[in-house]
Amino acid sequence: MARLLVMYRKPEDAAAFDRHYAGIHIGLAAKMPGLRSYEISDGPIATPGGESDYHLVAILRFDGMEALKAALGSPEGQAAVEDLGRFATGGADIFMFDDRPAQG
Amino acid sequence: MARLLVMYRKPEDAAAFDRHYAGIHIGLAAKMPGLRSYEISDGPIATPGGESDYHLVAILRFDGMEALKAALGSPEGQAAVEDLGRFATGGADIFMFDDRPAQG
Repeated sequence: MARLLVMYRKPEDAAAFDRHYAGIHIGLAAKMPGLRSYEISDGPIATPGGESDYHLVAILRFDGMEALKAALGSPEGQAAVEDLGRFATGGADIFMFDDRPAQG
Repeated sequence: MARLLVMYRKPEDAAAFDRHYAGIHIGLAAKMPGLRSYEISDGPIATPGGESDYHLVAILRFDGMEALKAALGSPEGQAAVEDLGRFATGGADIFMFDDRPAQG
């Protein structure tokens, strides 16, 4: 499996971000071909030292890195990426990697 | 559910990090009470712009934030946290949050 980790930094207007994310972005991202699961943080992103600089974390799974890259390159993936410019006013850190169970 | 996201920055000696992580750290972390799943990146952590500053990402799941905090505060959790000082020479960014499916 592979993961797409999208970490949104705190936006200028959190309520506007949340409205756009729930009302528009999830619908766009969920259309990506090959998407196996899509989960988002629910509430604050904490660190051991207290509050983090992040507002929301999304974790999407695909069968592997090839499938993940194909999804992002598809028309549906491009529409989701382009949508970031409409609400992610604090920026977003995006990471992609294959993963496996730690044990076994 | 809740997630513990541990993002290890590139260490001074990647081979030594990998040996310690596989040989010692996984065994310590996997003992934490209430741990539901534990997955790690397998290969490079990429960004849309190329290579990231991270060497390894671990994603651990618990039933909720209370369970996550209890796990970290347990003797097994403290042993895992203390172990970071023995191999995470590049530092680690740690995030904790409740999560839910993006849809539904």
